[in-house]
Amino acid sequence: MRIDLNSDLGESFGRWELGDDQALLSIVTSANVACGFHAGDPSVLRRTTAEAAARGVAVGGHVAYRDLAGFGRRFVDVPPAELTDEVLYQLGALSAFTALSGDRIRYVKPHGALYNAIVHREDQAAAVVEAVRAFDPDLPVLGLPGSSFLHRAEEAGLRTYREAFADRAYTPQGTLVSRREPGAVLHDPEAIAARCLRIARGEPVEAVDGSEILIRADSLCVHGDSPGAVDIARAVADLLRAEGVTIAPFTGTDPSA
Amino acid sequence: MRIDLNSDLGESFGRWELGDDQALLSIVTSANVACGFHAGDPSVLRRTTAEAAARGVAVGGHVAYRDLAGFGRRFVDVPPAELTDEVLYQLGALSAFTALSGDRIRYVKPHGALYNAIVHREDQAAAVVEAVRAFDPDLPVLGLPGSSFLHRAEEAGLRTYREAFADRAYTPQGTLVSRREPGAVLHDPEAIAARCLRIARGEPVEAVDGSEILIRADSLCVHGDSPGAVDIARAVADLLRAEGVTIAPFTGTDPSA
Amino acid sequence: MRIDLNSDLGESFGRWELGDDQALLSIVTSANVACGFHAGDPSVLRRTTAEAAARGVAVGGHVAYRDLAGFGRRFVDVPPAELTDEVLYQLGALSAFTALSGDRIRYVKPHGALYNAIVHREDQAAAVVEAVRAFDPDLPVLGLPGSSFLHRAEEAGLRTYREAFADRAYTPQGTLVSRREPGAVLHDPEAIAARCLRIARGEPVEAVDGSEILIRADSLCVHGDSPGAVDIARAVADLLRAEGVTIAPFTGTDPSA
Amino acid sequence: MRIDLNSDLGESFGRWELGDDQALLSIVTSANVACGFHAGDPSVLRRTTAEAAARGVAVGGHVAYRDLAGFGRRFVDVPPAELTDEVLYQLGALSAFTALSGDRIRYVKPHGALYNAIVHREDQAAAVVEAVRAFDPDLPVLGLPGSSFLHRAEEAGLRTYREAFADRAYTPQGTLVSRREPGAVLHDPEAIAARCLRIARGEPVEAVDGSEILIRADSLCVHGDSPGAVDIARAVADLLRAEGVTIAPFTGTDPSA
Repeated sequence: MRIDLNSDLGESFGRWELGDDQALLSIVTSANVACGFHAGDPSVLRRTTAEAAARGVAVGGHVAYRDLAGFGRRFVDVPPAELTDEVLYQLGALSAFTALSGDRIRYVKPHGALYNAIVHREDQAAAVVEAVRAFDPDLPVLGLPGSSFLHRAEEAGLRTYREAFADRAYTPQGTLVSRREPGAVLHDPEAIAARCLRIARGEPVEAVDGSEILIRADSLCVHGDSPGAVDIARAVADLLRAEGVTIAPFTGTDPSA
Repeated sequence: MRIDLNSDLGESFGRWELGDDQALLSIVTSANVACGFHAGDPSVLRRTTAEAAARGVAVGGHVAYRDLAGFGRRFVDVPPAELTDEVLYQLGALSAFTALSGDRIRYVKPHGALYNAIVHREDQAAAVVEAVRAFDPDLPVLGLPGSSFLHRAEEAGLRTYREAFADRAYTPQGTLVSRREPGAVLHDPEAIAARCLRIARGEPVEAVDGSEILIRADSLCVHGDSPGAVDIARAVADLLRAEGVTIAPFTGTDPSA
Repeated sequence: MRIDLNSDLGESFGRWELGDDQALLSIVTSANVACGFHAGDPSVLRRTTAEAAARGVAVGGHVAYRDLAGFGRRFVDVPPAELTDEVLYQLGALSAFTALSGDRIRYVKPHGALYNAIVHREDQAAAVVEAVRAFDPDLPVLGLPGSSFLHRAEEAGLRTYREAFADRAYTPQGTLVSRREPGAVLHDPEAIAARCLRIARGEPVEAVDGSEILIRADSLCVHGDSPGAVDIARAVADLLRAEGVTIAPFTGTDPSA
Repeated sequence: MRIDLNSDLGESFGRWELGDDQALLSIVTSANVACGFHAGDPSVLRRTTAEAAARGVAVGGHVAYRDLAGFGRRFVDVPPAELTDEVLYQLGALSAFTALSGDRIRYVKPHGALYNAIVHREDQAAAVVEAVRAFDPDLPVLGLPGSSFLHRAEEAGLRTYREAFADRAYTPQGTLVSRREPGAVLHDPEAIAARCLRIARGEPVEAVDGSEILIRADSLCVHGDSPGAVDIARAVADLLRAEGVTIAPFTGTDPSA
């Protein structure tokens, strides 16, 4: 048994610090690194990619809408051709820093409102896929199972990986319960860890209505932007390891791969 | 005899168009392409690098201070480590687009206030050199003869190329006459072309005080942001070719080099 | 008979110039002045408001999404409370410059994607109305007849004014034909001017399907971002004046009003 | 005896929070509120000005260079006329929010690198003064005693107020010891509070070389961007009050003033 833990990292910007990247990098195996459009100035990119490389954490391009003021959480109706170019720009920028540590970008995971939009917006999903393919057709993508994004990526011949959210409730259909509804976000570290273990083992978990669903995932997303979040991430990693689950990058551990 | 003509390109941004890039790309052999910090949105980067590649024009990274409002013409006292990272970020971003056309960045030429600052500011000069070296130690730089930038670049083992300005008056010491002084900018296409021919031939030209100076240059900078500027660029290219001077990228013409 | 002509002005930014503001200011009676979020740096705001004041042209706040790269033409799903604050910020900023010429902002007209969004998006329409009301409950708004924006503004007790587009085709229902459809934009200056005269006289005009519709408008929007556009604006103004229509700001001409 | 305590507030931006504004607003009597150019998005401006008004804390415009990435701490060589307009823009934007609570901007204090630059840069000092004067000739300024900024402001007929730094060492000449030198920043809350009391009483304090200097100040600057900083601010306020010093806005306490 084997699974990946991913988290959003490198989301500081200039004077503003966000998240406990040091703690997270000691827990996760994949780092979604902000590329400067929603967070992450060039020096944050350097620091984050260097620290990830030093710990053997795989770096993913956490591409986003150009929206510092909204932290990439506002949907922006970017025309597809422009979106492709904006994603390419971000991947190129990030790659200058992964190269510094002799590594490269290992995968792409869209951020925030872009992540949510391309669950269903075919034009933007195709635009992001086109950017990844144009940047490097061997670069895998990480996304929501069933999303337009992963469908389009498969059609384009990209390797796709599925993500589950450690601390989010699911509908019986296997989609995320909206944050606006009660019970959408789970808070108990032990319950969350137990749930993650079931996902890693391929066992069903409880949906928000009490029914059982099977969530297939190559990677579990944990958060680190609050002290409680780091505790949850640690509880998940500890339980998985204690139960014999190998935590490793979904992209593989061979740096020359 | 052989010389390069370079010009600033890709300086549009979103709705705003600037310069006659089509005309310039039919004249010059090296294109200093804006990287998004003073001008150039991602779609402009794509378009400009594609058109340059289609015409065999070498693409240089026209790196700048982060200053859209000031078009990179305001000196910004960026701490050197941050400046290195900001230049790396820009080079990485641009490289995603040169790669699309199977090419790569051929050289780096700093823009505007950064260009002027690193004539004498040792810390920022070293910071830019460090960025180029870290990005690719085989990447040459283009700059002002006698500048801290070229000195530092040589010390760091980078290949350096010297630039002269087609339409600017020089002091007897071989530095540029400040734009604030009368006669700093030349306007007559024929006189400018004749002057460029002398530089290309290695012959002395007249300084602002009437004395003669020798300006050694691997590349002549021409402008294209006004109809008159394009006429001057064309006059320079026409005369050079008519007089048997080969106009070719200073970085060489072999795309696999 | 009396009508207003309005146009988008002050849309340059830093090095980038856009539109023939001088020509437009000699034609229109209301200037929608960009406030820095989609275009218009502080010095452009100063210049534009000063020139408008010198010519007796009423200044309106042309508020927009924070989107320089997209020129405010990309819909951004800004949460309503934040949108209210972003509009207030822009109105405050603009008011510092209208005050310099002893004047003040005379009306508010949202720009681009925001203008289009609040035709139907109730939450954002209400957010913009709330900003105007909070800034100055005596400040009128200019918008599309039948839009959520004008409805909400009326409910909030704001004075509302209706805008028609000189160079756009209308559906039989009186809405604009989408730019993606053929015939959406009119190009013939004489035909456009004749059409504007009918609107000013309260006479019906031809819809895109050949039927007749009545467009009631307090202000006609003309454009100025191309030489042809300025010619059209001039043709409209010339014909209206020749036919005895008074062209005057819909907000009134009394500077102390 | 009476003195003002001022602090930098409203320096969050979007997702990024900075400083304990709640704590500070219960201690200081003047709030230097960021205006969006180095920090402070529109909703932060609203929140900060509303909370300041609710507590009777005077709001000052903390105007800065346009530099989110550098938090306004990088000197930018903005041409004076543009700087004037950039400051006006910021004051206008802030004034939309002070007006919401029935108040107005009470003073102007430049931020960061701009504050430091206009200690000696006459052109930028004059540019800031011109902006304040144009915005409201009755608006006072807060700055460093002996600076070009305060001299220029006096010449222009503005009311000027002098600031001292609670936690900074001074040279025998009464200027600040550079942060790059040892002992430049004081850390002991009790020592700092005792020093502030002496300044408030008009008594000399010890300079960095052990000599005594007299620092005349209308306002003491305290910081709040770390837990330790808030403790220092509180220690200063507590000691001053315990010793009978009135802490009140230097601009006066009459809201209708």
